[in-house]
Amino acid sequence: MKKYTIGLIRVLTVQDEDLLSRHGKIIEEAFPELKVISRCIENQPKGIYDKKTEEEAKPKILRLVKEFENEGVDAIIISCAADPAVEEAKKLVSVPVIGAGSSASALALAYGRKIGVLNLTEETPKVIREVLANNLIAEDHPDGVSNTLDLMTDWGRKEAINAAKRLKEKGVEVIVLGCTGMSTIMIAPNLEKEVGIPIIDPVIAAGAVALHSLRRLDTWGDAK
Amino acid sequence: MKKYTIGLIRVLTVQDEDLLSRHGKIIEEAFPELKVISRCIENQPKGIYDKKTEEEAKPKILRLVKEFENEGVDAIIISCAADPAVEEAKKLVSVPVIGAGSSASALALAYGRKIGVLNLTEETPKVIREVLANNLIAEDHPDGVSNTLDLMTDWGRKEAINAAKRLKEKGVEVIVLGCTGMSTIMIAPNLEKEVGIPIIDPVIAAGAVALHSLRRLDTWGDAK
Repeated sequence: MKKYTIGLIRVLTVQDEDLLSRHGKIIEEAFPELKVISRCIENQPKGIYDKKTEEEAKPKILRLVKEFENEGVDAIIISCAADPAVEEAKKLVSVPVIGAGSSASALALAYGRKIGVLNLTEETPKVIREVLANNLIAEDHPDGVSNTLDLMTDWGRKEAINAAKRLKEKGVEVIVLGCTGMSTIMIAPNLEKEVGIPIIDPVIAAGAVALHSLRRLDTWGDAK
Repeated sequence: MKKYTIGLIRVLTVQDEDLLSRHGKIIEEAFPELKVISRCIENQPKGIYDKKTEEEAKPKILRLVKEFENEGVDAIIISCAADPAVEEAKKLVSVPVIGAGSSASALALAYGRKIGVLNLTEETPKVIREVLANNLIAEDHPDGVSNTLDLMTDWGRKEAINAAKRLKEKGVEVIVLGCTGMSTIMIAPNLEKEVGIPIIDPVIAAGAVALHSLRRLDTWGDAK
């Protein structure tokens, strides 16, 4: 079976090689059809957390996008639930560009029509809001949690489960994780086990959309 | 790589073995990870074309769903863009049940936010309308076409291209095919080549969602 090469962009500066390639490893585990090369933007160790840091990150993301295209990757994933620079990148290169936020919210709609978003702290990313439109029926976040490190503690994990349960009580059928930091610590399986409804992990969703995108084009090639 | 077995339900009565397995073959070609067993409902050679024939088909679909589950398939695809009996089937069995209409419209949203639906004749299926919500900006269909046979003629194909071009002129960025009859004749590659925007084929989309669904659960199993 043909393997595709994916360029994956982390939108925070990571020195640790293990941490840098974490999302890529999650995708490769779920989709062994994909080989993932991970890179990160420079000089933003805290990543994107407001409008200003998003604008700061955009040209750096687009540079990496162009670099990946020049090196011949088959598709590019921007591994952040806010889809930063995804629209711009689509216009810049000819390979598919996939955002984790649009992928997760889009795929959630294949599972149900009453969608909830579980955010880390901030509000629901704009792109997720747009994709879900009036199928977004509730949003929540774990009490007292301010970053993914908190989520890795026993109390943080418990608060995440509580927040997911509150979403379910509001009638939510499917939960989208609104931050790829929750992918990094792979909290989705735990939540799904505790809450009993599908939890859509944005990094895995991006892998699924990348594979759909590439196989679709291959099938077209055969059929044209 | 592990192969999954998919039970695929055609919602019209087909005698011809080739025609019966056509959607399954399209999925297997795009996703060799999936082995597809195709079956069809009985006594409805004209399929589903209104509320009455949909209600007539539902118990037959649910019987096949139960039969597939009993035989141990990993997931079930209901290969119709109207998602007939999908909601009921989800409640009936414990394996994932995937509708072609919800899959196509959901995946389209990972490609863009201005979606158009190209229908065969009738109006846009309700499930596609619900998934797309206010991201659905235009609908159209080929002039003078009343079935997929018409679409296989030179004039029918030309009218389909014209309708897709009209959608693009209205600002549509991605087109969902609103009928799996258009998958049967594999018109998507031709349309995409002529119109130059992504065309989401409902049968291929259902394959992608099935694979996401199964790999997601496998990854959960490892991580739990």
